[in-house]
Amino acid sequence: VVEKMAVSDSLHSISEGLGRACEKAEVILITGGLGPTKDDITKKALAHFFKTGFVFHQETWERIQNIFSRLGINITDAVRNQCFMPQNAHILPNKLGTAPGMWFEEKGKVFVSMPGVPFEMDYLMEYEVIPRLARYFDGTPSCKKTVLISGEGESAIAERLKSFEESLPENVKLAYLPGIGQLRLRLSVFGDDESSSKGELNSFFESMIMHLPVHLIAGINCESLQVAVGDILKKRQLILGTAESCTGGYLAHLITSVPGSSAYFKGSIIAYSNKVKNHNLGVSDETLVQFGAVSEQTAIEMAKGCLEALNVDVAIAVSGIAGPDGGTPDKPVGTIWIAAATKSVRKARLFKLGKDRIRNIQYASALALNFLRLTLEYPEQI
Amino acid sequence: VVEKMAVSDSLHSISEGLGRACEKAEVILITGGLGPTKDDITKKALAHFFKTGFVFHQETWERIQNIFSRLGINITDAVRNQCFMPQNAHILPNKLGTAPGMWFEEKGKVFVSMPGVPFEMDYLMEYEVIPRLARYFDGTPSCKKTVLISGEGESAIAERLKSFEESLPENVKLAYLPGIGQLRLRLSVFGDDESSSKGELNSFFESMIMHLPVHLIAGINCESLQVAVGDILKKRQLILGTAESCTGGYLAHLITSVPGSSAYFKGSIIAYSNKVKNHNLGVSDETLVQFGAVSEQTAIEMAKGCLEALNVDVAIAVSGIAGPDGGTPDKPVGTIWIAAATKSVRKARLFKLGKDRIRNIQYASALALNFLRLTLEYPEQI
Repeated sequence: VVEKMAVSDSLHSISEGLGRACEKAEVILITGGLGPTKDDITKKALAHFFKTGFVFHQETWERIQNIFSRLGINITDAVRNQCFMPQNAHILPNKLGTAPGMWFEEKGKVFVSMPGVPFEMDYLMEYEVIPRLARYFDGTPSCKKTVLISGEGESAIAERLKSFEESLPENVKLAYLPGIGQLRLRLSVFGDDESSSKGELNSFFESMIMHLPVHLIAGINCESLQVAVGDILKKRQLILGTAESCTGGYLAHLITSVPGSSAYFKGSIIAYSNKVKNHNLGVSDETLVQFGAVSEQTAIEMAKGCLEALNVDVAIAVSGIAGPDGGTPDKPVGTIWIAAATKSVRKARLFKLGKDRIRNIQYASALALNFLRLTLEYPEQI
Repeated sequence: VVEKMAVSDSLHSISEGLGRACEKAEVILITGGLGPTKDDITKKALAHFFKTGFVFHQETWERIQNIFSRLGINITDAVRNQCFMPQNAHILPNKLGTAPGMWFEEKGKVFVSMPGVPFEMDYLMEYEVIPRLARYFDGTPSCKKTVLISGEGESAIAERLKSFEESLPENVKLAYLPGIGQLRLRLSVFGDDESSSKGELNSFFESMIMHLPVHLIAGINCESLQVAVGDILKKRQLILGTAESCTGGYLAHLITSVPGSSAYFKGSIIAYSNKVKNHNLGVSDETLVQFGAVSEQTAIEMAKGCLEALNVDVAIAVSGIAGPDGGTPDKPVGTIWIAAATKSVRKARLFKLGKDRIRNIQYASALALNFLRLTLEYPEQI
């Protein structure tokens, strides 16, 4: 992808955008503006750009008539007008909506126009556009592999990989894809021969991995910490529960955002008040009074209590001050305790985050996932 | 906004993008590429574009040293290099990260460069960039007022407001700001005289409200459903608890994303497995066997059980099939039951959502918030 642009709904802006895209790319993917209303002018702009006229497309007309008769709706003129297509368009049938996609081969380039409705566009990309592009170009331009890192930031990792990066040839690219509490490194090899590119990729990838401490590596070709943690739990056949205070459900949300997470995640007790910490998680009143809700002792008792209350193999607990209020000189906003418990292990660690509430919630949840990963895989590191 | 563009990480692409943007706009907002790694080249591209050199910015250096010493991390050279800034940049301090924003006035235009980390960009836009732009242009002041709607979609509301919208004079604008399960309508009046603009705004706003059924209105100048629900709970001095299955913590996260929510939110039991529904929420085994986990009966027993388990005044429960797996012909993916319970009321309703897991989780959570709002304020509507 050399560029993405979003232009305004005017013939001038669209034509000009097409012209610019045409100068830079071999393939131009266009979405939106194919509907029946007045501001849908993409077809007009394309016909103008290609200096061509319109033809009535009978197959589309029949398909639209079928859809409307099935729904029992009358067809308006605006809808019938959707069947006029630029003369040079090859039509890509849209099974999920009225406006078809269009494929153009002009000026030595490929232009594809798709409806902007996300699921219609997804459908056309997957079943029409990508297969056609693969046939048209008949080649594998690049292969890629990613490593997911957690426990060190972008700049520390960049420092570790400095010499490695400098040694990379022109056709090998390293990209840093930072997320909250995680970093993905993507290595791409560009070349004409697929098998030699793959060999090159694997050898550079291995060399990159050698520069990184093993406990920082959460997964290979793995999207996120929650997926990495899920993989570990599945492999080890362990059932997880969480006990959350300041993260307020966000940790459980990250875990359950992964399809199939019900195989290893049993549930969570969100103890936003001390009464729930005491009554539902069994944190003792003395602990809450003596050390406070945000303390190593409370976090450990929350994790231990979660293990029992939900009857799980592993529990992770978070208690902290997300802000903006609730901070004290001793425990400022951003003070977060994270604890993990299994039947035999109990560990806790203090993290000092910033002042932004949402950021603290998100970051603490990611730190909790990494703490869980280390507890299970590299207990000596915590 | 005349155009958005995303260019690739090369000096050439960035310079060329800046040149094009410069031809079209008076203000060019730029995000990303300010980090410490090798692919962060925005500053270099800006200096090249403006034909200027770099200076070391002492204040930024001191700020970064403070951050790192607080976190107990050593500063790498790459981080120190972040303190070199283009000579013509006015520095916008970034309280939430290491890379500051930059403001340039060149070629008769304003260029603003911000870090790409979303919350840092948000912060800079809100506290540095928008106030500065307002001062710089010193243009026609506007006054604004929003109404938060939940329970009907954008096109249904547009239909209700058709005649109202057509009657609006040139200097009054209505914007639709849709969110998941909510819609904000923003009415803006542009004029030179602040007090007459305010009068005009209030009168048009009142007229707009008259076109909308009262139970659809969740709040005035209110950002989100979770804030609206929090306001109701505070006003009525009610304590809330939630019981979540398919939403997996996202509902509790929405509620606790509001600062001060601990005043009315006590906690949640996330019952991702039937055992937790039974053991921690008291849903009977017979109910689970006879009606299934996704049923009116289970949702009601979850809400009732939550009321008791967490000892709260109001409970809201969600049980459904988020997907992609777990659907059956009777209960396809997207089948969601939502129930609310107080000491005296027990209500439940079925919602049929789509196929996308994350979308279902987010939408079901918003529907639950609105269901809670209606239970408390317009019980006759459910």
